[in-house]
Amino acid sequence: MGEFPPGIAYIDGEFVPISEAKISVLDWGLLRSDATYDVVHVWKSRFFRLDHHLDRFTTSVKKLRMELPFDRDGLENILHQIVTRSGLEDAYVEMVLTRGVSPTFSRDPRDAVNNFFAFVIPFGWIADEEQRARGLRVHIASVTRIPPSSIDPTVKNYHWLDLVQGLHEAYDAGKENVFLGDGRGNITEGPGFNIFAVKNGEVTTPATGVLQGITRHTALELCAELEIATQETEQTEVALKSADEVFVTSTAGGIVAIAEIDDVRIGGEIPGQVTKKLTELYWAKHSDPAWTTAVKSHN
Amino acid sequence: MGEFPPGIAYIDGEFVPISEAKISVLDWGLLRSDATYDVVHVWKSRFFRLDHHLDRFTTSVKKLRMELPFDRDGLENILHQIVTRSGLEDAYVEMVLTRGVSPTFSRDPRDAVNNFFAFVIPFGWIADEEQRARGLRVHIASVTRIPPSSIDPTVKNYHWLDLVQGLHEAYDAGKENVFLGDGRGNITEGPGFNIFAVKNGEVTTPATGVLQGITRHTALELCAELEIATQETEQTEVALKSADEVFVTSTAGGIVAIAEIDDVRIGGEIPGQVTKKLTELYWAKHSDPAWTTAVKSHN
Repeated sequence: MGEFPPGIAYIDGEFVPISEAKISVLDWGLLRSDATYDVVHVWKSRFFRLDHHLDRFTTSVKKLRMELPFDRDGLENILHQIVTRSGLEDAYVEMVLTRGVSPTFSRDPRDAVNNFFAFVIPFGWIADEEQRARGLRVHIASVTRIPPSSIDPTVKNYHWLDLVQGLHEAYDAGKENVFLGDGRGNITEGPGFNIFAVKNGEVTTPATGVLQGITRHTALELCAELEIATQETEQTEVALKSADEVFVTSTAGGIVAIAEIDDVRIGGEIPGQVTKKLTELYWAKHSDPAWTTAVKSHN
Repeated sequence: MGEFPPGIAYIDGEFVPISEAKISVLDWGLLRSDATYDVVHVWKSRFFRLDHHLDRFTTSVKKLRMELPFDRDGLENILHQIVTRSGLEDAYVEMVLTRGVSPTFSRDPRDAVNNFFAFVIPFGWIADEEQRARGLRVHIASVTRIPPSSIDPTVKNYHWLDLVQGLHEAYDAGKENVFLGDGRGNITEGPGFNIFAVKNGEVTTPATGVLQGITRHTALELCAELEIATQETEQTEVALKSADEVFVTSTAGGIVAIAEIDDVRIGGEIPGQVTKKLTELYWAKHSDPAWTTAVKSHN
């Protein structure tokens, strides 16, 4: 069974330690990856952009034709409760709805009973402290990102084998993380993050075929606040490698500088000026009541 | 929690009723669909082509850079045991290896402890008895099958959201099942089955971009035995709709005739002559010791 990180889950209507939170092996969430999820983080006991995550989650649920067992207030209340019960001040909060189990093991997804659970674990980062300081070294994988014609990337989903195989490729190449392309010379995203380039003061990021990340959206808003020009557009591998700065965005760590792509060193000092300004403003927003929600203590 | 089909699982080193077989919500098999599996069926207490399934499973495991906790004899022994313990004579036996849980929730797949489990449930069919007798009515989905450049289809995997969304499209269109294309006019496969056409006495099936199904392979061998010409080649939607016969192959039910694709009626009587001969030989092989393995009673 092994060890578990500390944490609390809400599952089957109960609050349990994370090590006891389990789903049936017959859940289609496992056997068909037929599930959607969202992850919101808590920093110093405040949820960051909780409404955005709840909006995206409930939209994803509808797109997969599933149903949550309670309304938005009920959902939000559970998230507050698991964080409070965990005692964690900085946390990673995941909410999941799977297709669930069909009592007859019928192959018709409409026969399954949808299964909601949520869990909180300590805040995690896509890069460790040293990597964040000196910038990540990434590999561009030969495997391509699952295209939007197959899986709608606006539904946050667990179809990650391409990203995982890409990670293995990156490790083989002596790198720490991976970017996936679309097979036509454009970059898409990496495991759990969106990709941004800075060139001549303008910030660009792929427009389509990628997760509509909340941190991606946040970075674009922060650019507007800082009066930095932005463009959502196709991003070629070639352009990315000649950018002045490259950074990635994720709920798991915010904004992280990229130092190398394949064997190309990106820009000058790490972090670059734009990445640095965005990162500072990103963390400053974590105490802004307009962008955050205090975790409620339960009775 | 709902109800469960009858069945037995081997999980965490123990044999348990299927309703008690669970995995952690932190297993990457769920959170990244980072897992592989295989399904072998048992008919009248004999495994059908067990060696082929074990070969494919162990190959898939290696391709995902995971490790089984025991050797092939150990694996085979567990499958025999769960079937015997279940008391089922006709059964669906699934073996699974997931990436497992990382004790630190590290995002590096190499840190996870791979998790093996297997379960047996009653034999299931991709089509019910009436549908098998009169042929399935299928829809060609607008969603395209995840391409081999993203996910290697020779590694049996749970990346099925495209197939599930395709099923919903089919139900909307008043059909019972679905075929997915590759976005370039060719047909690939459906949820858990390969697709075959018969035209002027020749049997064809897509060569690449599809699961290398054991039943697909079996159908090609049966054709050879019956001296029916076969070709593995691209299969256009147009050609498929003008075929004399269309059938699908799956461990979950063998060979099943297709009666309609979109609004096109396929061929004449159902099943067609080739489909009928293949189906009869397929089931005859289920008592042939060369193709089957008797389930061993345990002490």
